[in-house]
Amino acid sequence: MKNLKYTLAAAALSAAAFALPASDFGELYYQRASLFEALPVDSTSVVFLGNSLTHGCEWHELLGMPNALNRGINGDIAEGIDLRLNPIIEGHPAKVFLLCGVNDVSHDLSADSIAGAVAAIAARIRKGSPSTKVYVQSLLPINNSFGRYKRIFGKEQTIRDINTLLKPRVEAMGATWIDLHSHFTDADGNLRADLTNDGLHLLAPGYIIWRDILRPYLDEE
Amino acid sequence: MKNLKYTLAAAALSAAAFALPASDFGELYYQRASLFEALPVDSTSVVFLGNSLTHGCEWHELLGMPNALNRGINGDIAEGIDLRLNPIIEGHPAKVFLLCGVNDVSHDLSADSIAGAVAAIAARIRKGSPSTKVYVQSLLPINNSFGRYKRIFGKEQTIRDINTLLKPRVEAMGATWIDLHSHFTDADGNLRADLTNDGLHLLAPGYIIWRDILRPYLDEE
Repeated sequence: MKNLKYTLAAAALSAAAFALPASDFGELYYQRASLFEALPVDSTSVVFLGNSLTHGCEWHELLGMPNALNRGINGDIAEGIDLRLNPIIEGHPAKVFLLCGVNDVSHDLSADSIAGAVAAIAARIRKGSPSTKVYVQSLLPINNSFGRYKRIFGKEQTIRDINTLLKPRVEAMGATWIDLHSHFTDADGNLRADLTNDGLHLLAPGYIIWRDILRPYLDEE
Repeated sequence: MKNLKYTLAAAALSAAAFALPASDFGELYYQRASLFEALPVDSTSVVFLGNSLTHGCEWHELLGMPNALNRGINGDIAEGIDLRLNPIIEGHPAKVFLLCGVNDVSHDLSADSIAGAVAAIAARIRKGSPSTKVYVQSLLPINNSFGRYKRIFGKEQTIRDINTLLKPRVEAMGATWIDLHSHFTDADGNLRADLTNDGLHLLAPGYIIWRDILRPYLDEE
């Protein structure tokens, strides 16, 4: 596994010296990842880990939980999340709610490889912090009628396939699977158009549906 | 003033029907603004209002304050902030910390017009919610040696001019001016290269400096 702190220092140095982009992950990734290394995680924390769908919410407000920590980064992929797991695992949080994969889909990876990468993140958290309850959330549906994100055109079934492959792996390792997908679909199995304005991300009513799905998992010991 | 709820509904409808971008402000703006309409603000709230610099932080964690609310949106300008002020004003929060202007600079507006637009936001909050303490934070310096954001090339002095023009306006209306700029500069008066990886946004050490500047203002009644 790469050493994030070294990568961060090297990225900052090279960017300053040569005016190049900081890394393959983009500047925002390192801005957020460096912040996440500075902010404490402890045994009372409930961590929301993922990409833009997680990043876009104010979880501690939506849930009324001061211990809810946003560990989302716009555009992140499974590899990026894996690279920044240490500060989370080392804090031994009470719960982690993971959602990732759609950006991996846009990078043209197979459903099987993406399901494997997401499951590996969950397994690493379970191994590194056995006291942490790990919840893996299904990928959300997309709606390409918005015509906004070309790299996910025609990938609706890939997303469904990832969910089908991921659920048994999550359950086999003793983590908890949460189906979000079916709560967000229209009659065609795509993301409801009234919950989004770009076919991928959520407007407030979408986050309220998500909150209500999570409630029993937040309440359980 | 435009009616945000109407704009949101119309944007969602037109985007769904015609597969067009939701608005001039971009989809993220409406995603966040709709969330901010759904989340409560009350008299105990401390609101961080602004653009990507505000958006990028987890304020409630950094400050250890469950009542710290992030009302930042990447790329936002004074007009965008003005358009989404109602849910903040109507909540009569304890404090608002405003920082905006650098994206207006990238849109080639004059220092005087930007200072006027930022001051108008502060004035609107003060008028609409006299119980709210309003803090206007100086624009941060930028560092164009990173070569990342072409629309702010050569605009270092514009930023300094905005701060010079804005401070007396803020103080004249009885709001509090907070100088961030001088705490983030190198010997040339630009954003310290070790605090950023793109010349505009902050890595964790930058947010820690910011936190320490804010501390006395957070502690005061």
